[in-house]
Amino acid sequence: MTYCVAISVNEGLVLVSDSRTNAGVDQLSTYSKMFCFEQTGERVFGILTAGNLATSQSVLLQIKRDLKQGKSPNLNSVDHITEAADYVGEISHAQQQKHMTAAADGGIDTSASFILAGQIGKAKPRVYLIYPEGNYISSTNETPYLQIGEVKYGKPILDRIINKKMPLEEAATCALVSMDSTMRSNATVGPPIDMLLYKRGTLTMNRRVSFAAEHPYLLELHANWNKAISDAFAALPRFDGPYDDNDES
Amino acid sequence: MTYCVAISVNEGLVLVSDSRTNAGVDQLSTYSKMFCFEQTGERVFGILTAGNLATSQSVLLQIKRDLKQGKSPNLNSVDHITEAADYVGEISHAQQQKHMTAAADGGIDTSASFILAGQIGKAKPRVYLIYPEGNYISSTNETPYLQIGEVKYGKPILDRIINKKMPLEEAATCALVSMDSTMRSNATVGPPIDMLLYKRGTLTMNRRVSFAAEHPYLLELHANWNKAISDAFAALPRFDGPYDDNDES
Repeated sequence: MTYCVAISVNEGLVLVSDSRTNAGVDQLSTYSKMFCFEQTGERVFGILTAGNLATSQSVLLQIKRDLKQGKSPNLNSVDHITEAADYVGEISHAQQQKHMTAAADGGIDTSASFILAGQIGKAKPRVYLIYPEGNYISSTNETPYLQIGEVKYGKPILDRIINKKMPLEEAATCALVSMDSTMRSNATVGPPIDMLLYKRGTLTMNRRVSFAAEHPYLLELHANWNKAISDAFAALPRFDGPYDDNDES
Repeated sequence: MTYCVAISVNEGLVLVSDSRTNAGVDQLSTYSKMFCFEQTGERVFGILTAGNLATSQSVLLQIKRDLKQGKSPNLNSVDHITEAADYVGEISHAQQQKHMTAAADGGIDTSASFILAGQIGKAKPRVYLIYPEGNYISSTNETPYLQIGEVKYGKPILDRIINKKMPLEEAATCALVSMDSTMRSNATVGPPIDMLLYKRGTLTMNRRVSFAAEHPYLLELHANWNKAISDAFAALPRFDGPYDDNDES
């Protein structure tokens, strides 16, 4: 499985992804699910992937090949980021179709989802979630984050904390806490954790880091958050019944 | 949808369930999903339900009818709580089968899951999760809680906090926090929230409460937890790059 999240705040974008893949429960592997494309000073894109690894690898391969061969459209030829989302959605849908019938016979699901985030020129930075069908949705002011993969465990903390006005570094910390909760509750999501911070208008993606499982910051965050939650819980008012069957207050 | 959780600690059992049901997104209704059966001083059972409402209602109806008619087996005739789990599982499976073919034609899933918790005489209190197929698993020392329905949003807090040695009231508070997180992130889970505290060996179920949405304790818990999480998050060490592409520390 996979967990990826992209957050759009006024200051810029935060992308975080895990690196564990599994076919069934025994074929565990490590693959990064974060891919960056950059024409420095012109445009930047970050792509996160979830779902069938053969599909997502072939989609990324074609994106790179189209760029190299200058085939149109490609990520550098599109004028708007929605065109880039259309382009990725079309490639993804085509790649899924290619092996779908054969895969279904073996009980395999070839579907894949993508998050595309980036900025072209002076346009606003944007985040899109591209569904297996090739259509997509955008983040908004009311929904400043989008997730793919194993999304539920890490959603409550995002719902409580994220807002458009928070500093980029704070959004990054929240994304890592969301990842920490997911890894704790689901064995199929695991390190290294890739993280990208993109500051609006810089049109360069040089703030990328891959946290190994033992990275000091990740360990510190994990320990601090765990203690903070325990302390917060200990300070809550206790339920102090007894209540009776008939007390429906 | 539904969220139910049952926690088994050394002191006893905690059961918590929401009351929202939906067919699609527009037919929202309120039904309690917690049912108690008691032969005071002899045996007590609490049953939580998730899944198809017609199935769970017909299962509960048959459990009550079997008790009334003294048909064997019934909840008062079984010697061990595993026999009660077998009995509920068999009724559930039969009820699902009854309408399965007709329902499948309409794209309806008749499956239902149950949590059965209770104590018979001097035997240990136990919690079982009964799958739609009728088979079941038990809570253990390592896994002291079981959930049904929309289980993922509320799992991280349980994983962090619950242990067998905690007081019953603390387990109850944790179950309510787990419910609070679920309600915040998923619109198909909602109040009233039913809660039952069962103290080991008492063989009576008189500590049951139904919290309406505006119940003062629920509101207090919601506000305190939200503030505690925000404060805890604010105190976390921030990610303070910049990091470079090549920093794979």
